[in-house]
Amino acid sequence: MEFYERTIAKEHIYNGKIIDLEVHDVELPDGQTSKRELVFHNGAVAVCALTPDNEIILVRQFRKPAEKTMLEIPAGKLESGEDRIEAAKRELEEETGYIADHLQLIYEMYGSPGFSNEKLSIYFAKDLKKGHMNLDDDEFIELDRVHINEISDLLKSGSLEDAKTIIALQHILLNYNDYK
Amino acid sequence: MEFYERTIAKEHIYNGKIIDLEVHDVELPDGQTSKRELVFHNGAVAVCALTPDNEIILVRQFRKPAEKTMLEIPAGKLESGEDRIEAAKRELEEETGYIADHLQLIYEMYGSPGFSNEKLSIYFAKDLKKGHMNLDDDEFIELDRVHINEISDLLKSGSLEDAKTIIALQHILLNYNDYK
Repeated sequence: MEFYERTIAKEHIYNGKIIDLEVHDVELPDGQTSKRELVFHNGAVAVCALTPDNEIILVRQFRKPAEKTMLEIPAGKLESGEDRIEAAKRELEEETGYIADHLQLIYEMYGSPGFSNEKLSIYFAKDLKKGHMNLDDDEFIELDRVHINEISDLLKSGSLEDAKTIIALQHILLNYNDYK
Repeated sequence: MEFYERTIAKEHIYNGKIIDLEVHDVELPDGQTSKRELVFHNGAVAVCALTPDNEIILVRQFRKPAEKTMLEIPAGKLESGEDRIEAAKRELEEETGYIADHLQLIYEMYGSPGFSNEKLSIYFAKDLKKGHMNLDDDEFIELDRVHINEISDLLKSGSLEDAKTIIALQHILLNYNDYK
């Protein structure tokens, strides 16, 4: 931790539904000071779920920040104090209607470590059972699937632009024998 | 674009050095309205650079949002109006002291598509030449390397938590023969 940056003053800019924004004055390792713009987020979970037909379940949804529709693995943000695995099971069922009893952690990742503390846990699930879809009021989602034999082509196509989805699908390809 | 969310009102919350924050009232596909918290970012570039010794160059730096040191491929944000490839070459030389004449696009990705429009382009580089390191005043970086034969172990170790770095190293493993 030799490059530690100590907060010497902070300004609260915004407290929102999904994110909070603070600007910190920090002391740098050489004693100088600088400003850091920090977007605080409660954390998120995502599930790479394999059906009995060897297909990964994907969701297509409009993402307002980029003003485009993206193809992603199911994901959602943590409720305050919520257990990550319970949140992942909840999001999977709400967005896809599938229940997974057992989730296996693939990765924990920061998507934008330069300005945000959003930490996302990606899980793998199989042996899915039928449950009930239950989308949030402001959530509009279309389900899609990709067969495990077509993941490589999908990755090469350039049509995936979501970091967690690229990580999950590359991981499945690299560890194919563990997930069949 | 059937799930398009049209902005019907916007509030400018913050204009910063790295990010701007706006809150938009949007019209949902069903005619209802909702709020979207949007973190606007100029975009970023990253370089997965292979040395003649078959090592990928990594940088270790303190990331204030997560309050921890992370191991990442070299990266940086776009200056206003800057070409992505020129920015990637600039960041590689500034952070590592290496010059790459030719960059090959691996992926374009959004790390936090739920709240940010930050789009990051990841490039591959080899045939590196010696240039000059030139860090920003508030940038403190330690160089590291991982041999191409040790990428798999590094990915499995769980010590990588940065999305772009995981994506780049998985990609090298999956396409090893193209990058030797």
